[in-house]
Amino acid sequence: MSSEPLGVALVGCGTVGTGVAKLLLEKGDRLAQRAGRSLVLRKVVVRDPAKVRGADVPRELVTTDLAAVHDPAVHVVAELIGGTTTARKVVLDALAAGKHVVTANKALLAEHGPELFEAARKVERTICFEAAVAGGVPIIRALAESLAANQVTALQGILNGTSNFILTSMAEQGTSYAAALAEAQRLGYAEADPTLDVDGSDAAHKLAVLAQIAFGVTAKPHEIEKIGIDTIDAMDIRFADELGYTIKLLAEAWADNGRVALHVAPVLLRHTDMLAQVRGAFNAVQVVGDVVGETLYQGPGAGMMPTASSVVADLIDLAVGRAQRTFAAAKLWSGQSRGFVIEPSETVRSRFYLRLLVLDRPGVLADVCRILADHAISISSVIQHEALEGRAEQTVPLVIMTHYSETGKFRAAVGAIGKVANVAAPAVFYSVDD
Amino acid sequence: MSSEPLGVALVGCGTVGTGVAKLLLEKGDRLAQRAGRSLVLRKVVVRDPAKVRGADVPRELVTTDLAAVHDPAVHVVAELIGGTTTARKVVLDALAAGKHVVTANKALLAEHGPELFEAARKVERTICFEAAVAGGVPIIRALAESLAANQVTALQGILNGTSNFILTSMAEQGTSYAAALAEAQRLGYAEADPTLDVDGSDAAHKLAVLAQIAFGVTAKPHEIEKIGIDTIDAMDIRFADELGYTIKLLAEAWADNGRVALHVAPVLLRHTDMLAQVRGAFNAVQVVGDVVGETLYQGPGAGMMPTASSVVADLIDLAVGRAQRTFAAAKLWSGQSRGFVIEPSETVRSRFYLRLLVLDRPGVLADVCRILADHAISISSVIQHEALEGRAEQTVPLVIMTHYSETGKFRAAVGAIGKVANVAAPAVFYSVDD
Ligand SMILES: NC(=O)c1ccc[n+]([C@@H]2O[C@H](COP(=O)([O-])OP(=O)(O)OC[C@H]3O[C@@H](n4cnc5c(N)ncnc54)[C@H](OP(=O)(O)O)[C@@H]3O)[C@@H](O)[C@H]2O)c1
Ligand SMILES: NC(=O)c1ccc[n+]([C@@H]2O[C@H](COP(=O)([O-])OP(=O)(O)OC[C@H]3O[C@@H](n4cnc5c(N)ncnc54)[C@H](OP(=O)(O)O)[C@@H]3O)[C@@H](O)[C@H]2O)c1
Repeated sequence: MSSEPLGVALVGCGTVGTGVAKLLLEKGDRLAQRAGRSLVLRKVVVRDPAKVRGADVPRELVTTDLAAVHDPAVHVVAELIGGTTTARKVVLDALAAGKHVVTANKALLAEHGPELFEAARKVERTICFEAAVAGGVPIIRALAESLAANQVTALQGILNGTSNFILTSMAEQGTSYAAALAEAQRLGYAEADPTLDVDGSDAAHKLAVLAQIAFGVTAKPHEIEKIGIDTIDAMDIRFADELGYTIKLLAEAWADNGRVALHVAPVLLRHTDMLAQVRGAFNAVQVVGDVVGETLYQGPGAGMMPTASSVVADLIDLAVGRAQRTFAAAKLWSGQSRGFVIEPSETVRSRFYLRLLVLDRPGVLADVCRILADHAISISSVIQHEALEGRAEQTVPLVIMTHYSETGKFRAAVGAIGKVANVAAPAVFYSVDD
Repeated sequence: MSSEPLGVALVGCGTVGTGVAKLLLEKGDRLAQRAGRSLVLRKVVVRDPAKVRGADVPRELVTTDLAAVHDPAVHVVAELIGGTTTARKVVLDALAAGKHVVTANKALLAEHGPELFEAARKVERTICFEAAVAGGVPIIRALAESLAANQVTALQGILNGTSNFILTSMAEQGTSYAAALAEAQRLGYAEADPTLDVDGSDAAHKLAVLAQIAFGVTAKPHEIEKIGIDTIDAMDIRFADELGYTIKLLAEAWADNGRVALHVAPVLLRHTDMLAQVRGAFNAVQVVGDVVGETLYQGPGAGMMPTASSVVADLIDLAVGRAQRTFAAAKLWSGQSRGFVIEPSETVRSRFYLRLLVLDRPGVLADVCRILADHAISISSVIQHEALEGRAEQTVPLVIMTHYSETGKFRAAVGAIGKVANVAAPAVFYSVDD
């Protein structure tokens, strides 16, 4: 190799960091061949240097001193600790010291993207983040480079592997939400505290990152409506299945006429839809471009080696000099507009699945149908199910599939339906994607 | 824009060229924003300047003179004429004149890759070819950049949209091969002479290109075994379906221990396999990397705008300066080895679907089973179907699914079965992918 090696410091050596260290230490020849120069592990910063790591990191590289990355032989700092407080400081400090940054941290980007990217541009350094969205799926490069001739018009992603694992188990094994979550934890897919995964926050962070690339919008957390899977009832998965649909937690962006709606929610997809086939902890993103049409990217959404694959791809891009060009051209989080403003999902038109628990008395269906009609929502089908075991005897599930209506209007109708006598429980409703 | 515009000459302005011209002429602002500088259409070389084009190309840019691309204001020549004779000259001439080259021509790369890439390296110019494989699907970037940390271990692609369209029609509408082909021609998916599409040649060219990137092997045409769909019988599609499988034309590469087997053939995929769901003229590639695991890329495999999307992505990469870095680092068709040699698919282990037409006499099944046993091939299931309408009365289809065996051994067994009395027609057999 003629060129100088690229020196890499890892800050954090947990799941992802260990995978990256393994690749740098065990696949050095391969990476050097791909990058045209060596990638050398120079420092590994952790909290507890005594902890046994899955990678055989030479002891003298391990430190608890965050300033160790200032070493002039370090050219890139990989922030792999997570969270938004220390991580933010680590990134700003690395940039100030003239290092490029690679991160897998979507929460950090969603919260501090503008500040970090501005800091990087000031010192002419680059931030790479392929691993931050959909783990091993190269969706960042797809949007930023491969689809550069396109304006994205729609984007739908299965971006949280834990949620998808749980939904797949519930659908295929008929397990309850609680049992599926426990299984996900046993298998290491879900954290001890899975809140951010199952309440849609993690997917919303990733959607914010994708929306920045695809639409140039900087979405604040509250601008992405989110409904997680933590309230999903097994009966709705079953009823949807009977109607020919699979429920998936989707992060969606719909662009129209300079406006883009962003939200995370469980959505009914036809069994034959490609996204409906994405099982277990896999992630997938469907991107519609105005030039190319529909494209799909799928792969493992998390895990040690898949995520490390993306982090190391970024390191190679930096070694090759590609990433610096992309960073300069893309002007992410710079306020450079693609002409889009964020609109509330109230205005998005959709079909809906509505499930009520009603007391089996005459007139309930008539009342519900009247309210929908009053909100100009037409019904495509109604199924009254048998009374459920273990529930109050006269309560029966009533499932209504609607034609297209505005989300806001539909929600108003649901509000009114909640006040009808003999409707026993809060209504459950999901968008239907046909 | 501070930088100099990137001057583009199109050689060929048919389906793909017209799409590229439209983007350059109609989406100039967008492309300039993405590239950080303008992309300007300088010349359009065609055979017949009087022909009406779908894009509004200014008359003064159109010429029949191939030397027009020598204009110093042209920085990139996009070869979009197809074929391997004139196209080769166009590319060599452009490089000699100091231009970068973008091409959508897989046949050219498969036949002349080493010569063209050597020529480009000599003059320090870049050849880009995202559009040459799978049209709008960014599979070249995925392999060359996104998965750079990986050694690919397996690759399976639906790379010919015409074949996939025909197979989809046959499977879903139960049409004959001839009727499905006629429909594909009517809709503009298949050429007037569809030979290269349906006999597997086009997919083999694309596989040769992917194999160069993934394994560093330069596959000569005869090193890629190919079976097309032109001999497919509707009954096998039906029988496969009854067994839970979909037949797809796949281009496959299986790597093991420094050896890689390459072939194009119809393969039985489980209905639930992601590739089995790829319908109509769509393309998809599943790539298994030793670090990331299974990833999948899907999108439109051809057509004016999807293909133009990829060509223009290459132009933007050149304008940004990314493509030059990738080209220099990747050393494609340079003989730089990734340590793989091509092995004949004889040695690949697979399950098989075997369908015979036999005279319904005692002992035939026993004879066939004996031959398979003699070749150490064990049987997983046997179905004797009803006599087919319109065929000789006593001929019945016999379908045998085997367990894993070496392809070579299986073929030897099939040869022997062909000689059994009462086996009426040549055996039909396909790999089964579980
Ligand atoms: N896990 C995945 O599959 C995955 C996938 C995609 C993206 N990500 C993202 O990747 C990042 C890392 O995730 P992970 O799963 O690898 O986390 P993890 O397993 O919890 O590892 C975190 C690491 O950071 C170190 N660390 C924490 N605070 C520190 C501090 N103040 N100073 C120095 N070191 C500190 C820890 O040190 P000790 O080891 O000494 O405790 C540990 O090595 C997160 O942003 C996550 O969102 C993860
Ligand atoms: N079509 C697709 O969807 C698709 C998808 C992926 C890749 N590709 C590849 O893209 C390339 C172009 O395909 P296409 O479908 O666009 O072909 P096409 O429609 O047949 O167009 C060919 C163009 O080349 C011009 N041409 C042919 N010979 C020429 C010569 N000697 N000098 C100057 N111009 C010449 C023709 O000029 P006139 O117009 O004057 O006849 C025409 O404009 C091929 O390599 C193909 O494999 C195509």
